[in-house]
Amino acid sequence: MDKVRIKIAYIGGGSRYWARDLMADLALSPRLEGSIDLYDIDSAPAEKNVSISRHVFGRPEAVAHFTVRAVRRLPEALKGADFVVISTEPGPISMRYADLVIAEKYGILQPVGDSTGPGGIIRALRAIPEYIGFAQAIGEHCPKAWVINYTNPMTLCTAALHAGFPGIKAFGCCHEVFHTQHRLAALVAKWFRTPRPARMEIKLDIAGVNHFTWATAAFWRGHDLFPRLREEISRPKFFADATRTAKDHLAHERWFTSPGLVAFDLFRRFGALGAAGDRHLAEFVPWYLEGGVTGLMRWGVIPTPYSWRKKRRSLKDHPVEHYRSRPVQPSGEEGVAQIEALMGLGNLDTNVNVPNLGQLSQLPSGHVVETYAQFRRDSLVPMVAHPLPKSAATLVKRIADVQTLTLDAALNRDVHGAFSAMLADPLVHLQTDQAWTMFKAMLRHCRPCLPGWKLP
Amino acid sequence: MDKVRIKIAYIGGGSRYWARDLMADLALSPRLEGSIDLYDIDSAPAEKNVSISRHVFGRPEAVAHFTVRAVRRLPEALKGADFVVISTEPGPISMRYADLVIAEKYGILQPVGDSTGPGGIIRALRAIPEYIGFAQAIGEHCPKAWVINYTNPMTLCTAALHAGFPGIKAFGCCHEVFHTQHRLAALVAKWFRTPRPARMEIKLDIAGVNHFTWATAAFWRGHDLFPRLREEISRPKFFADATRTAKDHLAHERWFTSPGLVAFDLFRRFGALGAAGDRHLAEFVPWYLEGGVTGLMRWGVIPTPYSWRKKRRSLKDHPVEHYRSRPVQPSGEEGVAQIEALMGLGNLDTNVNVPNLGQLSQLPSGHVVETYAQFRRDSLVPMVAHPLPKSAATLVKRIADVQTLTLDAALNRDVHGAFSAMLADPLVHLQTDQAWTMFKAMLRHCRPCLPGWKLP
Amino acid sequence: MDKVRIKIAYIGGGSRYWARDLMADLALSPRLEGSIDLYDIDSAPAEKNVSISRHVFGRPEAVAHFTVRAVRRLPEALKGADFVVISTEPGPISMRYADLVIAEKYGILQPVGDSTGPGGIIRALRAIPEYIGFAQAIGEHCPKAWVINYTNPMTLCTAALHAGFPGIKAFGCCHEVFHTQHRLAALVAKWFRTPRPARMEIKLDIAGVNHFTWATAAFWRGHDLFPRLREEISRPKFFADATRTAKDHLAHERWFTSPGLVAFDLFRRFGALGAAGDRHLAEFVPWYLEGGVTGLMRWGVIPTPYSWRKKRRSLKDHPVEHYRSRPVQPSGEEGVAQIEALMGLGNLDTNVNVPNLGQLSQLPSGHVVETYAQFRRDSLVPMVAHPLPKSAATLVKRIADVQTLTLDAALNRDVHGAFSAMLADPLVHLQTDQAWTMFKAMLRHCRPCLPGWKLP
Amino acid sequence: MDKVRIKIAYIGGGSRYWARDLMADLALSPRLEGSIDLYDIDSAPAEKNVSISRHVFGRPEAVAHFTVRAVRRLPEALKGADFVVISTEPGPISMRYADLVIAEKYGILQPVGDSTGPGGIIRALRAIPEYIGFAQAIGEHCPKAWVINYTNPMTLCTAALHAGFPGIKAFGCCHEVFHTQHRLAALVAKWFRTPRPARMEIKLDIAGVNHFTWATAAFWRGHDLFPRLREEISRPKFFADATRTAKDHLAHERWFTSPGLVAFDLFRRFGALGAAGDRHLAEFVPWYLEGGVTGLMRWGVIPTPYSWRKKRRSLKDHPVEHYRSRPVQPSGEEGVAQIEALMGLGNLDTNVNVPNLGQLSQLPSGHVVETYAQFRRDSLVPMVAHPLPKSAATLVKRIADVQTLTLDAALNRDVHGAFSAMLADPLVHLQTDQAWTMFKAMLRHCRPCLPGWKLP
Repeated sequence: MDKVRIKIAYIGGGSRYWARDLMADLALSPRLEGSIDLYDIDSAPAEKNVSISRHVFGRPEAVAHFTVRAVRRLPEALKGADFVVISTEPGPISMRYADLVIAEKYGILQPVGDSTGPGGIIRALRAIPEYIGFAQAIGEHCPKAWVINYTNPMTLCTAALHAGFPGIKAFGCCHEVFHTQHRLAALVAKWFRTPRPARMEIKLDIAGVNHFTWATAAFWRGHDLFPRLREEISRPKFFADATRTAKDHLAHERWFTSPGLVAFDLFRRFGALGAAGDRHLAEFVPWYLEGGVTGLMRWGVIPTPYSWRKKRRSLKDHPVEHYRSRPVQPSGEEGVAQIEALMGLGNLDTNVNVPNLGQLSQLPSGHVVETYAQFRRDSLVPMVAHPLPKSAATLVKRIADVQTLTLDAALNRDVHGAFSAMLADPLVHLQTDQAWTMFKAMLRHCRPCLPGWKLP
Repeated sequence: MDKVRIKIAYIGGGSRYWARDLMADLALSPRLEGSIDLYDIDSAPAEKNVSISRHVFGRPEAVAHFTVRAVRRLPEALKGADFVVISTEPGPISMRYADLVIAEKYGILQPVGDSTGPGGIIRALRAIPEYIGFAQAIGEHCPKAWVINYTNPMTLCTAALHAGFPGIKAFGCCHEVFHTQHRLAALVAKWFRTPRPARMEIKLDIAGVNHFTWATAAFWRGHDLFPRLREEISRPKFFADATRTAKDHLAHERWFTSPGLVAFDLFRRFGALGAAGDRHLAEFVPWYLEGGVTGLMRWGVIPTPYSWRKKRRSLKDHPVEHYRSRPVQPSGEEGVAQIEALMGLGNLDTNVNVPNLGQLSQLPSGHVVETYAQFRRDSLVPMVAHPLPKSAATLVKRIADVQTLTLDAALNRDVHGAFSAMLADPLVHLQTDQAWTMFKAMLRHCRPCLPGWKLP
Repeated sequence: MDKVRIKIAYIGGGSRYWARDLMADLALSPRLEGSIDLYDIDSAPAEKNVSISRHVFGRPEAVAHFTVRAVRRLPEALKGADFVVISTEPGPISMRYADLVIAEKYGILQPVGDSTGPGGIIRALRAIPEYIGFAQAIGEHCPKAWVINYTNPMTLCTAALHAGFPGIKAFGCCHEVFHTQHRLAALVAKWFRTPRPARMEIKLDIAGVNHFTWATAAFWRGHDLFPRLREEISRPKFFADATRTAKDHLAHERWFTSPGLVAFDLFRRFGALGAAGDRHLAEFVPWYLEGGVTGLMRWGVIPTPYSWRKKRRSLKDHPVEHYRSRPVQPSGEEGVAQIEALMGLGNLDTNVNVPNLGQLSQLPSGHVVETYAQFRRDSLVPMVAHPLPKSAATLVKRIADVQTLTLDAALNRDVHGAFSAMLADPLVHLQTDQAWTMFKAMLRHCRPCLPGWKLP
Repeated sequence: MDKVRIKIAYIGGGSRYWARDLMADLALSPRLEGSIDLYDIDSAPAEKNVSISRHVFGRPEAVAHFTVRAVRRLPEALKGADFVVISTEPGPISMRYADLVIAEKYGILQPVGDSTGPGGIIRALRAIPEYIGFAQAIGEHCPKAWVINYTNPMTLCTAALHAGFPGIKAFGCCHEVFHTQHRLAALVAKWFRTPRPARMEIKLDIAGVNHFTWATAAFWRGHDLFPRLREEISRPKFFADATRTAKDHLAHERWFTSPGLVAFDLFRRFGALGAAGDRHLAEFVPWYLEGGVTGLMRWGVIPTPYSWRKKRRSLKDHPVEHYRSRPVQPSGEEGVAQIEALMGLGNLDTNVNVPNLGQLSQLPSGHVVETYAQFRRDSLVPMVAHPLPKSAATLVKRIADVQTLTLDAALNRDVHGAFSAMLADPLVHLQTDQAWTMFKAMLRHCRPCLPGWKLP
């Protein structure tokens, strides 16, 4: 079969994780070929990724070839692009001090702090103007390109792309739902005494906003998994204190692992299963973070500390040479599968974040929501989600409202608007003057990344 | 592979067309087997279909076996059914005199008169209570069965099923969109000098209500067909008077054939392509029927006369014996493919009529709309339709409103409500007292099929 | 009590009818004083009105004094204005040939042709850009002024004001509802054998769009008038042929008079009373104009002919001197009462046309609707209207949709958009190519008033 | 002028406060006369109120006469009633232990605990079935009566009346908005160096749900008060710690008094003024109650303790004789003014709680909201509220959602639904298992008032 030729522009092309995964998956795609322009405000890591690319696409198991280069100017990268992939960090890593440490000083614990809560809000204020700028550049240089966003806060970065260029074909991708499928696959193996099924065999109905996504139904080969799950969580001790597990993770710096008790507790209380990692889910409601780290560890979850995030940044990266001998393997991400589908190489049904056109009628029209959608040739068609239980919908709607307030505030550089968003966030139950003090400290810390703001 | 065993209840089981097609398609399904209960208020034709079934499933090319029997009582047919298929005629054929002939006496020409217009409305008043009854029986005897409706008025019969038993898993199917795909396939062959592609290769976006469905986009292997279509219809003489063609069809009693000029004229005027036969499309707007049969023939369309409909009813049917030697062939309908998908034998994306959950946000929530949907194991997921051009949406919304008024009137046996629906129909521009006289005549003609009404 | 001082800018200040009525009512207001700037593209009639004003405000019965002058430039008139009053004619009177005569050539009779139907649409296309311009000038020169519009098409001129300057405090006023009150007052006198009550004693609930307004309830001193009205119209012969009455009106050139049979027929068919003159009401639905002038006269209504409209324009106006001796009398209009209320001199509840903020939830948010509202000091608060009967709402919604299509087309100078609006109008049931020929003829006739359009 | 004769049924007719106030106001109404039937499950206090009524209506300043009697059966009271007034306590006072004390044991402080928060929710679960019952009785015995509710939770009791009998003419009344007017009147006196104006001179725009109502604008004789208020609260020390004031109120058992700092803080943070007492406002958001009683007293607010509520119940009431010599004075409530308006004795514009028909389009259709409305003869017309600032709307929407969940749970006696409502309440940021323990304790305490529930 003929190869399909594409050009990809990668914004944040110095990325260690996402960019290299994408190159690996492209190398394994039998139907694609073309070029990748890596754009990064910091050119050295982009150049390094170029060097790595030579090894990746030169490996014997690579079946596709892509020409990779680093470019200094965004327009150059965008020109002629069929796809734009974005993964960036909104500001230097020291900005995360505001998101995580300042908030915690005021008693607000956030295991991740990049999607919601005070951390997610201040991070969004930094990111949104950048994403508006990306969108405008895309509108100018490659208006017909498909744009894949991997950056958090996913909902608001994707919303900013649409606000910056209303005709944009942008969507946001996240693998958290995959984890839910994996977790259910393990249970299926147990329940049906069968080898663990592949992730894609677990069929979910999905609805929500990114990282606060819910599965409203789950099937495996036609078996309804929810009654079994209900039985499973009714077992005595199912919800027993998991502090010991958490401590073990802490000891081994396994920041991203947890037994899923928060997701299951949401299922117990609200009738739909939380479909993201517990560290994310726990941030969208006030209950699990009450009692600080101790309270959270009861659910087997540990927060990812700012210190580690900073340390990781300064950790030595693999040398380029490392990739020469390292076999290229599928990343588990779906970006390349989506690209193939959009190029007409077969439909793909998967979860995605796009503005609401009716797929989740419990949320406002136009709000970026996460549901299933079908990727087809040059087209992305959302599927109508099964409605959330009313009570779960209530929780998601309040988050969507806070997101809207945050977006408006970022667009208008409106300090008081942003503060009202923060007060409205479910994690904020400080006295208002304390909250204001906290917010001012955050703003001041982030001053370099808030150009044009009149800070208090 | 294992066969999947199902029971089908067929309401209107004496049907010559739909029931026999269904049996043929089932006979050719390699994965299904089971039984069919044919229920009909008139038992002789159902018994005849049982006899025919023996031949059909006994043919050498049949790969599936189904046991078919005629049952006298609806509950018996429904008990244990996995699927209920419905195709009925609302009242004896003489009722169609009201739908077609009385309306025409008052100057309202209707080429079909079964979906909209005065004919569609009065037909709906006869049908809705029956479908409410079917739904209640399904709710009692097989509440988890999937229900496929083939009867017109499609929108309102399907709506009545949902009104009668709100938990019903009912949808309506229609092949008119297929015709649009066929027509475009022929143009693709011409434009690209290629053999005529298969229907399914023509990818449409679809939105509307049944028989007033619109294609908002059309692709073939990634080629956008709308710019080419725009060029095609700009050719001089494209819209030339097609009376001669119409007369030819008339002479040969080819009632259902037309060159598609109405669909293309809608495309020219409203930017979306009518995606149903012209004889249907022409009834939803007042323009093409102005000037009576002569006016309509200008577009190459001829009305199907009441006389022929009556005659056909009394035509001799094939003898049972005929089916012994007749090869079983695929019908072109999708019912069995849908059944297979709902049984978990592979997903199917196709057009379908179901209550609006968000798939067409320009129409009211809950209204039965026609869009694409995905059939999966025990699940039917609507896909969000590309919005109609605002002007086309305006035309569809007024039809939806008339349908709602009609449904309400039928549920309440409300003469004045029904008359207000009729006045609001775009085909009715009589003086109101004349319209009232016409409506009274229709009601009186249909008295036997309007039990419980207080007729004027 | 202290006098309240205001400045009024009058756009269309040469108006014979509205401007002089306004001056009369102002002269009779005990609480107001100030100045009026008359602006008109044609300065002579404005100058004449200035001369007349001297007589009006000099009359002994005048209790208020206003300084009136004609100004040549709109900004000068607007500067410092507290109120802007607008009554203009969109284009020279010869434009009405398109609205009325061309349409009639194609079989579309319109008794007025200024609000809806082909005439209303083409007229709107001429007016909307002007009103956008007025709004922008108001936004620049007197953004806090209250703006009263008297020009038809009322809905779309008022909508254009809001589209041109979104912060505008503009509303549209119409006296047609008053006529309904007068008509009911006469019936009250008969039913209750009482002297005819004052108009304001007839309490209505009102909902709709201007000239297609409906009364959903009517009370007089707590008596529900609808049951009585239902009885009244059930009298034999109530709806008898009124051609003789119509002929009599025709003979005496009483263009604006009719017995109200259309309003009552709407009441009979839809359960809410048409609350505008029959000549207006009859244009929003296709039924009454079927059968041309003869058909219309059956309801006692005659169309106002283009010939008379033209003639009236050239009739000799009263000389200035005439006003010296003519007593100043209340006009029956409410503009000055509204001005008083907005200046804080007492609340006023009356019907008004403003964008929908929830007062009529059956119509789209933002659409200019007619309901009751309360005029208070510097504030206009719509009152939530009783919902229309569903069937009546259906009729109004389709008109609102056509208005939206027309507004969009005018804003974009979009010929095809405008044509789709025209096809969607209930009066247009021509073959589409005939309709297109008619529309082109209209556009060409109006070319001088359609600057910037690419006409076909 | 003629007197207008009415019959009032009073449910909760033993009420010390509301019933006696109503009698006083009726005694002072020059236009009304008639009878009052006092119905109470406890007949002694109702009989006492009958005795008191003789004194009240016998006082020299009484201008109206009403015959008052106590009736034992609700149908008897309702029969023939023109008005039904309801003020009841949902369950014996000991039930308030669950609302207030149990919640506080789990760290949730509630100054009132009757409208929202855990206390408001559990109280609603007790009250809703009763109010459903009242509504059904009204539907049966006096379906055309106007129904005035004074009981909290106002929103949900009023909603239950509408749920129980959809045609009911019920509204809820609350005087909290009056307090905001009084507070602003005092400021007007200061700002304008004028005698303190009457409450009604302070014109507000109002929007929200009861006790979480907001003023979006405030005027006095045309002066916009919000800019002045903004200046006022910017004064240094305006928001200084008010603990000393609170302590003083505590010492004197002035439970209902506070300096309004919470209302003003909402104004500062959200741009609209809280329009209820601070003790109510503080319960709808999590910020002010953080830090327990100490935290709350910082705003000058003290909670009303359960002990006092219980004590008050057992306090000796005035003897009947007391009313013989006590002058009858206007209560400051508006019930009688509303009754007069509904009887056609002049329109009244005031705030009221009724289902949303469009008056507050930011909240769901049908939800009971508080806005201004016009009382007319036999009609209550909501006025369209100025929209809330988006951020304030977010806070109100989440409350409305919790109310809807609570109503649904009460209608279905659904423990888990009720618990999900409680978790969704902004005051609940306990760990979910702690919240569950608290909720179970509440349910068990209220068992006698939760007939038909399956308690955990």
